[in-house]
Amino acid sequence: MIGGGSGGLAGAFRAAEHGARVALLEPSALGGTCVNAGCVPKKAMWLAAEAGRRLGMAEALGFPMPARPLDWPAFITHRERYIHNIHQSYRRRLDAAGIVHVVSRGRLVARDASGRSVVECDDGLRMQAPRLLIATGGHALRPDIPGSGLGSVSDDFFQWRAAPERVAIVGGGYIGVELAGVLQQLGSHVDMLVRGERLLRGFDGVVTDQLADDYRLSGVRLHFGREAVEVAKAEGGLRVRDGNGDWHGPYDKVLFATGRAPNTAGLGLETAGLATDAGGHIKVDAGHATNVPGIYAVGDVTSGLALTPVAIAAARRLMSHLFGGAPDPTLDQTDVPTVVFSHPPLATVGLTEAQARERHGDDVHVYTAAFRPMLEALVDGSQRSLFKLVCVGDERRVIGLHLLGDSADEILQGFAVALKKGVTLQDLQDTVAIHPTSAEEVVLMR
Amino acid sequence: MIGGGSGGLAGAFRAAEHGARVALLEPSALGGTCVNAGCVPKKAMWLAAEAGRRLGMAEALGFPMPARPLDWPAFITHRERYIHNIHQSYRRRLDAAGIVHVVSRGRLVARDASGRSVVECDDGLRMQAPRLLIATGGHALRPDIPGSGLGSVSDDFFQWRAAPERVAIVGGGYIGVELAGVLQQLGSHVDMLVRGERLLRGFDGVVTDQLADDYRLSGVRLHFGREAVEVAKAEGGLRVRDGNGDWHGPYDKVLFATGRAPNTAGLGLETAGLATDAGGHIKVDAGHATNVPGIYAVGDVTSGLALTPVAIAAARRLMSHLFGGAPDPTLDQTDVPTVVFSHPPLATVGLTEAQARERHGDDVHVYTAAFRPMLEALVDGSQRSLFKLVCVGDERRVIGLHLLGDSADEILQGFAVALKKGVTLQDLQDTVAIHPTSAEEVVLMR
Repeated sequence: MIGGGSGGLAGAFRAAEHGARVALLEPSALGGTCVNAGCVPKKAMWLAAEAGRRLGMAEALGFPMPARPLDWPAFITHRERYIHNIHQSYRRRLDAAGIVHVVSRGRLVARDASGRSVVECDDGLRMQAPRLLIATGGHALRPDIPGSGLGSVSDDFFQWRAAPERVAIVGGGYIGVELAGVLQQLGSHVDMLVRGERLLRGFDGVVTDQLADDYRLSGVRLHFGREAVEVAKAEGGLRVRDGNGDWHGPYDKVLFATGRAPNTAGLGLETAGLATDAGGHIKVDAGHATNVPGIYAVGDVTSGLALTPVAIAAARRLMSHLFGGAPDPTLDQTDVPTVVFSHPPLATVGLTEAQARERHGDDVHVYTAAFRPMLEALVDGSQRSLFKLVCVGDERRVIGLHLLGDSADEILQGFAVALKKGVTLQDLQDTVAIHPTSAEEVVLMR
Repeated sequence: MIGGGSGGLAGAFRAAEHGARVALLEPSALGGTCVNAGCVPKKAMWLAAEAGRRLGMAEALGFPMPARPLDWPAFITHRERYIHNIHQSYRRRLDAAGIVHVVSRGRLVARDASGRSVVECDDGLRMQAPRLLIATGGHALRPDIPGSGLGSVSDDFFQWRAAPERVAIVGGGYIGVELAGVLQQLGSHVDMLVRGERLLRGFDGVVTDQLADDYRLSGVRLHFGREAVEVAKAEGGLRVRDGNGDWHGPYDKVLFATGRAPNTAGLGLETAGLATDAGGHIKVDAGHATNVPGIYAVGDVTSGLALTPVAIAAARRLMSHLFGGAPDPTLDQTDVPTVVFSHPPLATVGLTEAQARERHGDDVHVYTAAFRPMLEALVDGSQRSLFKLVCVGDERRVIGLHLLGDSADEILQGFAVALKKGVTLQDLQDTVAIHPTSAEEVVLMR
């Protein structure tokens, strides 16, 4: 395995379970982006931000107390301890599984005489293997515009030790939305500069429009149709020029959330003859095989869905196929549920209404529930939940579910199982509601 | 309809949708136990208690602040406003649907010449109807022991304007567990006196054992095998004698959560010739019909599952059958998901392991996930989640799911839909996990 992120680790553990001899090459912290600069610290920050939001709600409920800002250094100590524990757990599990952890990058060199792949370590050591998995992940991209070096990317964000007073987020994708939400909740004044006219392109528009409203209500200033084209130092901070020529700012920080790129530099792809696509991703077939026999790739270094659980599932399936005799290495990448940890969270699986209409025309039937969860109503808060169900055909088969609101992150998983199983609106309605919850609204739609 | 609780209201609205002329007899607040002295104010108290718990967690996360107790009167103002809004909403919907709300009890008297049921109101007015639904619900039972009049029941709890300093909860069913949890979290010192050896008889034992541990850790003192047989006034408060002769207390309040009984007093059941069972519940068949033609009953006044959504679903199905031409009035009462709003919440659907083994013997396969949710781990808290999956057969069909832990209340609904649809362990595993959540643990069990 080259790469000790989620995909590489999952692959290593599964291969070892099947009795394979495994070496894992990873020069830096185990767990990759997810554990070190992605899902895990992101969710931790989100939990802190939600805890802060709930302090305000608790006060409104009847817990009298002064509002206090988060003590970032104290919180980050907790966050880093949590991550440190994950590292330790991985090390213990690698040892227990007899997996050799090589603290080095791996570079592909020419194959050996018996046709096995050869990987060279930083110290010149060479290793041969009949099967090689590349799971080196990706990294945040800094846009190629003047002054972009003055800005930060998500990796930098996790190094911050205080909330910047004024921050510009460039980009309206899920990383931009998540960072903007966290920072605004934790006390920053946030501007978002978004090239398009919507947050979260590709998500259901009705739901993202309401999320935009939620963000505006929480104080985030949204600037749509504004592509950042320059960053400059000015009196009082950084300023950002947009494509219309307008300057925004000053800001204490400018944070780019404008895309990610695969980690292929120094991998020796050319030496090994591995094909890549226009975006630089390693090309793989449905069975995760590259064009070079014996070399496979999963996760963000390929062009599949850039989600940790997808990389994990792909690596496991592949290893069970290669070493465990499982017939089929392919992973069904349709109907993959995912959550944007915005405030409130947005959870989605299957087709948006627009995608459904493109595919099924007029035979698409949409049901929505808009409501205020009880806690929000008790404090007379403004945050409403919006649940949307997309069905097709006379039998109203569920082909999309989009949940915006408190607890949406936890509600979706079970419905994603049901959706894959082909449930209909009637199946939802035939399940007795759990009262009073937000989740029951999904089975009460009609 | 006799009874303006959840079942009566749901039946009235559905019947009116189908064009029936409907009168609803309800002398007191609309919404019955659920809205006025059950689900709704209970969940509101739970939300307040959870908010209090989260204050402690927020402090541990890095929000420096002094711990403050809940200002009960302030909170109850919110709670009552919320309930008041529900009442108003019901009134608006009744008006809009053209349903006559008669503010009176209804007493069955002899049928009229054409065989229609006759109901007499408090003022002597008589109404006739070819179809009559009884949905008068139930009430908390005070045990028949010396001094029980000194104690309180759940209805009384919702009148309290402060947390009692010391309270005894008699009974370990779901109401006892919920009230004990809320009171302990809100600052009371809680003793529970439980006749049996477990909390929540009928729930999965592994899960309720862990809940008992959680309660002990939070400070609740659990006394199993202790039936309360007497309450007496003593110096410093109330004392409770158990079946072993030991006295407990003193307490400021003794709260009985020892069962509920159907509301049939004064209904004229004998006059109408309606049959009841040993517990006094009105006997109905699977189609909700009593032994008297034209008279039906749903909800807690019958002996079915005493859950608001069951009463609602039953009333709706019945009315769609009687007035809308739907062929089948029966409601599938198997695999009904339900949540105990304990701290943490406990959510359950389908068979417990014990029930499954009774039915399927050795062909039962159990999977569990025990973990600390991220927020709990960040504050180094002690509350762990315990998820348990009960499967049957080679195909590992899921026949039970038991979730104890934060967010369990919201996680279950979707999995309940999937369980009814007959999913297997493989179906769970084939659904990509949503990371990082608690819900993903259900699809990651193996």
